[in-house]
Amino acid sequence: MSFYIAMGARERKSPYFKSTVKAGVTHFTVYNHMYMPVSYGDMLAEYNRLIYDVAIWDVAAERQVQIIGPDAKKFIQYLTPRSLNKFSIGQGKYVPICDHLGNLINDPIAMKLDENKYWLSIADQDLLYVARAIAAEKGFDVDVDEPDVSPLAVQGPKAEDLIVDLFGEHVRDINYFWFRETELDGIPLVLMRSGWSKQGGFELFLQDSQYGDVLWDKVVAAGQKYNIGPGAPNYIERIESGLLSFGADNFPDCDPFEVGLGKLVNLEREDDFVGKAALQKRFNTGVRRSLTGLVLDGEPIQPNAHPWGVYAGEKRIGKISAVAYSPRLEMNIAIALIDSNYTDIGTELTVDDDAEFYKAVVHELPFGKRWRSTNPTESTT
Amino acid sequence: MSFYIAMGARERKSPYFKSTVKAGVTHFTVYNHMYMPVSYGDMLAEYNRLIYDVAIWDVAAERQVQIIGPDAKKFIQYLTPRSLNKFSIGQGKYVPICDHLGNLINDPIAMKLDENKYWLSIADQDLLYVARAIAAEKGFDVDVDEPDVSPLAVQGPKAEDLIVDLFGEHVRDINYFWFRETELDGIPLVLMRSGWSKQGGFELFLQDSQYGDVLWDKVVAAGQKYNIGPGAPNYIERIESGLLSFGADNFPDCDPFEVGLGKLVNLEREDDFVGKAALQKRFNTGVRRSLTGLVLDGEPIQPNAHPWGVYAGEKRIGKISAVAYSPRLEMNIAIALIDSNYTDIGTELTVDDDAEFYKAVVHELPFGKRWRSTNPTESTT
Repeated sequence: MSFYIAMGARERKSPYFKSTVKAGVTHFTVYNHMYMPVSYGDMLAEYNRLIYDVAIWDVAAERQVQIIGPDAKKFIQYLTPRSLNKFSIGQGKYVPICDHLGNLINDPIAMKLDENKYWLSIADQDLLYVARAIAAEKGFDVDVDEPDVSPLAVQGPKAEDLIVDLFGEHVRDINYFWFRETELDGIPLVLMRSGWSKQGGFELFLQDSQYGDVLWDKVVAAGQKYNIGPGAPNYIERIESGLLSFGADNFPDCDPFEVGLGKLVNLEREDDFVGKAALQKRFNTGVRRSLTGLVLDGEPIQPNAHPWGVYAGEKRIGKISAVAYSPRLEMNIAIALIDSNYTDIGTELTVDDDAEFYKAVVHELPFGKRWRSTNPTESTT
Repeated sequence: MSFYIAMGARERKSPYFKSTVKAGVTHFTVYNHMYMPVSYGDMLAEYNRLIYDVAIWDVAAERQVQIIGPDAKKFIQYLTPRSLNKFSIGQGKYVPICDHLGNLINDPIAMKLDENKYWLSIADQDLLYVARAIAAEKGFDVDVDEPDVSPLAVQGPKAEDLIVDLFGEHVRDINYFWFRETELDGIPLVLMRSGWSKQGGFELFLQDSQYGDVLWDKVVAAGQKYNIGPGAPNYIERIESGLLSFGADNFPDCDPFEVGLGKLVNLEREDDFVGKAALQKRFNTGVRRSLTGLVLDGEPIQPNAHPWGVYAGEKRIGKISAVAYSPRLEMNIAIALIDSNYTDIGTELTVDDDAEFYKAVVHELPFGKRWRSTNPTESTT
């Protein structure tokens, strides 16, 4: 089943929109009220490009919530359960954000641009207005806005060489999730070693959207020698690597413990933060559900279009959020959120896609450990 | 340019999804993280169905924010600048909601189900987490959740007869924006005279999503004698009728005054509400921009896929959010948000769709006044 996406003024177009159309984009999703490319029509080519060469991704829909003001540090610390004691200018940190009931409502990268200036690079949920409301009601002296900042990602093993060609050798010294404010031929941007894959790469946070297509063209031109081509956050690779897809993998009432982010919840903190009491209570009660890998029997499976049911015998114990055939692993792999009583490696389960049943076995996440150790950008932060 | 919509677990499917596929849906948008049908591939047929017969719309993406608790009344009053002094059980009211800076961040229908129970039937922005944050920080004794409630709309001049056939003569007594809790063959729902058109109709707020396709089938079966067919919130009719499309017509920094909702902002209220000080300041300063109608020269225009620029001479003065050819008016009509200095009826402007220029003339909104007066459901509330 294929359907068209309606286009109108309610959603925003990315500054790279025209470039992605020129590059042959075929599928969009809507992410933070912006069209985001998902495919250029050749899933395997896009996967191979990411695994073996370098891919360029329009991820402008990863919007920033900017926090500026005398209380910026205090405020961002109040927003997240993660302790940010050691947080340097030029550094990014993965920070779960919960509501006051302890439900995970976003999982941004927090970027510290200055003592009083932060960005939260957000997943698909309107965090801007939540943050603004909390700041106002609690009386923090901060401005909370969405700046004109639109990330463009280059991902894959050849991404670093490409970025060196564009910005110079100094970028090799940038550690994972660290960034530098810089420019490319006068185009202002923030260059961070990051991106939603485990293949290594950088994100270029363009700071002036009128230069979107110019920036795209410069990166593509420099990338010719590295076989650069268009891509998007990759359905297969993110399952292999066990990257959390906020909104897909979790349920609305999931806490960070259930989706594997428990180590980023610092309950021993003395200061208060949003959801602290609720999270303490949930921690004491114990985790009901857990994210896990599954390996499915049978012929190569096409990516799912909706959550699939997971069963232990007759009992529904959770959902698969993403399933696909991995060309590297040569097996059908899935990310599932299931009852924590069934997460022992090797547990046999059943999966239902509404049409047929599959046998499934619990597998560790990420699937790709055997090659992750060779990846210099690997990090849990 | 046509693109496919990517389908996955991150977005939700409506309880009516299978029915809309069976009915031939061709275009979806994403609205409140849910796929929402936008077209069944024949724009004119869908328009005519709405204007002359009756159309069935899957508007489940119009999600509810449910507020329950001893402070529900106080809390909902704090959320909106509109005074809700006279608000009866069984009544709905259109309530703009602003952030603390006075920007419009949603324009729901508030429905009073009980003294301590309300729904906000929201536009495409995550109001749930904003409301929950404000309630927690300000200490209101309420629970804020999203219930399992999915509206299905029937719209058009024959909608009332259809609803009478299904629910009985008593529904003729339901006034605009009033509702009754009822059921259809055991399916629990709330029946409200409402919907995002000015052609009259009802919305059936299904309260148990497992019955989505059953409910759809029952409505379609009863609607055969009225020529019922599938449709969606209609691009042309909403321009004719001047209905606000939140997220399309406004800018993120627009206040209610700028989009024609000033009469719903009660600054004389003695109690505090979110954005009060900011709105008072904006009111004193005066309105910079206003929503207005435009009539464009030339051959029938296809609906726009992005905002178009509006110019007075060389000066950019705003944007068109929606433009289309009206078969009834036999002219190209548009909704624009422009500099308030240029909104006199008859003002001549220029419009730019990135490819060519059009002459445009300012027109009153709604365009359809001449037939609105015959519409029994007309109301500004």
